[in-house]
Amino acid sequence: MKNTNLICTNCKKTFPIDRIYPRCDSCAEPLEVQRVTSGTIIDGDILRQTILERYADFFPFSEGERTISLREGFTPLVKSSRLAFELRVKSLFFKNESQNPTWSFKDRGTVSGVNHALSLGYERIGTVSSGNMAVSVAAYGARAKLKTVIFVSVNIPPEKLDPIAIYDPLLIRVDGDYGDLYFQSLAIGKERDIYFINSDVPFRVEGSKTIAFEVCEEMNFEPPDFVIVPTSSGGNLRGIMKGFEEFKDCGLIKKVPRFICAQASGCAPICKAYSENNEKVSPFQDPDTIAHAIENPFPPSGNEVLRRIRENGGIFVAVTDDEILRAQKRLAEEGIFAQPAGAVPLAALAKLREDRKIDEENTVLCIVTGGGLKYTAALEKHNLKTAECRIENLADFVRKRL
Amino acid sequence: MKNTNLICTNCKKTFPIDRIYPRCDSCAEPLEVQRVTSGTIIDGDILRQTILERYADFFPFSEGERTISLREGFTPLVKSSRLAFELRVKSLFFKNESQNPTWSFKDRGTVSGVNHALSLGYERIGTVSSGNMAVSVAAYGARAKLKTVIFVSVNIPPEKLDPIAIYDPLLIRVDGDYGDLYFQSLAIGKERDIYFINSDVPFRVEGSKTIAFEVCEEMNFEPPDFVIVPTSSGGNLRGIMKGFEEFKDCGLIKKVPRFICAQASGCAPICKAYSENNEKVSPFQDPDTIAHAIENPFPPSGNEVLRRIRENGGIFVAVTDDEILRAQKRLAEEGIFAQPAGAVPLAALAKLREDRKIDEENTVLCIVTGGGLKYTAALEKHNLKTAECRIENLADFVRKRL
Repeated sequence: MKNTNLICTNCKKTFPIDRIYPRCDSCAEPLEVQRVTSGTIIDGDILRQTILERYADFFPFSEGERTISLREGFTPLVKSSRLAFELRVKSLFFKNESQNPTWSFKDRGTVSGVNHALSLGYERIGTVSSGNMAVSVAAYGARAKLKTVIFVSVNIPPEKLDPIAIYDPLLIRVDGDYGDLYFQSLAIGKERDIYFINSDVPFRVEGSKTIAFEVCEEMNFEPPDFVIVPTSSGGNLRGIMKGFEEFKDCGLIKKVPRFICAQASGCAPICKAYSENNEKVSPFQDPDTIAHAIENPFPPSGNEVLRRIRENGGIFVAVTDDEILRAQKRLAEEGIFAQPAGAVPLAALAKLREDRKIDEENTVLCIVTGGGLKYTAALEKHNLKTAECRIENLADFVRKRL
Repeated sequence: MKNTNLICTNCKKTFPIDRIYPRCDSCAEPLEVQRVTSGTIIDGDILRQTILERYADFFPFSEGERTISLREGFTPLVKSSRLAFELRVKSLFFKNESQNPTWSFKDRGTVSGVNHALSLGYERIGTVSSGNMAVSVAAYGARAKLKTVIFVSVNIPPEKLDPIAIYDPLLIRVDGDYGDLYFQSLAIGKERDIYFINSDVPFRVEGSKTIAFEVCEEMNFEPPDFVIVPTSSGGNLRGIMKGFEEFKDCGLIKKVPRFICAQASGCAPICKAYSENNEKVSPFQDPDTIAHAIENPFPPSGNEVLRRIRENGGIFVAVTDDEILRAQKRLAEEGIFAQPAGAVPLAALAKLREDRKIDEENTVLCIVTGGGLKYTAALEKHNLKTAECRIENLADFVRKRL
């Protein structure tokens, strides 16, 4: 590990870099790795480089401490002229995180967390998740041959359980309050020397920075005006923002984009706190949205997201399930099949254009956080069209339809 | 289009490059694009390059003819020291094609085919497939705003239908002999000016070449001794082999690997023809395998694969569903969750090591053709382990198990 610290995002108290408890002892707010103020991109052939190698200056790892990779990141930035035209913005980009080893952005934070765990000598890792993060931690735990424990809710359906279990972690369906589980995991981790790579731990946030780094490169170091991030725990948004800020501090870009915290209206605790002018996020009652991947009723980085987006001049927006499903279909018709949470930014953009909060001169980036095969049950909500025809009538049928 | 031709793989008769009928008028064998004998890699920043740009010398497209991309390819080459050790080979690599825009290798051939269709002025494309290829063609057809027709079998289950339908093609469930459908599609294509980008059309084969190109770069221009390819129509194997051969002819590598045509024993028409010493492949009776993605009982490039692998000194091997499932689990425990067809190469390697057809000095590359979320029904065949626990007993439970 390079010589650096963890710092409380709120009270700025510092802690050693080998601490795995992710929150401040004084104010209980989340910690982050000290910001990098000088560094550059390690030029090289991306076909033979990992994200931790290319952006090594921006991570506290020493050279021998980047041993595990499934070659995460370096995902596509897809430009959509058609949707930019339809929504009347200057240009519109999608960062397609579904092209990661476990088909979501989580792999970036997991690779960072697992290498941190290994460099500290941990033999056990874990997480609390029923979705993308569980799959990602199980995969990297397997790759690193670490003992890996995953806590899921006892009610998890088999279609979500099996794609975690295939990697062979210790997969425990826990019967009890799911909200308590996060805090239980921290206590158990402390007692049993298990590094819990939960949603907003400092090294997971570090991994998310690489989304910003790649976007800067892909956009010729001229970042977009707005970045729209589907927001659950807040860890991914924090990481992407930190990435742009570090590149700016290092002189690699001139401005940091404005950030949009996009939530589902069925579970929008951060948006609610903002609209009620609160400084702290409260638990969201009776959460219910099709965007399960961002259905976190009490996000551990919620207060920090509130603080940072306010400072940044950003926007909070919540979209309905109907809007999310419409965006999912619209995005597929552009060639990108996202899981519902991954379509939330496009739904948010449509709404913000109607409300004139984003205007025609703006360049917009949407983070598509995960792939559509993650949650195919959502497809039943669409009125998908098919035709049926006997083979002997096929030529005729096609003649009439195409 | 650059000045080049299509050539019959068998009788060497030439045809114009704008021909979309993929077979020879004389001998009915598949056509291919004339081989490239001089060219190099267009160096550039991969974050801002597409595969058709980086390997432009090896495609007949002119500069304005590479308009469509979802940023396919540039997939990971993942090295597995542990499995190399367990299977006692010198080194072992997995090319993880599940990190493509629609999560299979098919996107490489589709991007090539769609750009060919566009450059020839076609307004309609199509394919016959119930799996990876249907999804891929639907996605790129949507991206290019082409009218896109997909023929599937009337019996296709909804979990395979919906992920095609979400891209909004004209999706026709055809009642009748599925084998006839391939030939019907060619006739309908001819009559209605629909470019059918089927499994082994010349431009799809061209797209598959880029797998070889990337592997050469990733392995420092020292290709492996063996490349194992799950084989269905034969188009992907033909393309990968052609890629290595073209790089050799251009002086970029010194040797072409030996190729292994790996099939499922429940549908192994090419392996059967080889073991019976036939020159032509016959339809495989009553095909039945869990590796649906390679369940083609009468592969259109079967004869060509037979010819080429014999010339190449390669190997034909078939593996059982049990072996495929074991390999799928084993691969997941290395961090890569493949669909059953994508685990066939690892199953084949285990078998070929037992039979001593691959030895301890060999370097081996397995092509993981698609991701595990493509076919989650296969997970029910595994005896996946989970535990259950009440939250108040969780600390105790973990103490005992980890």
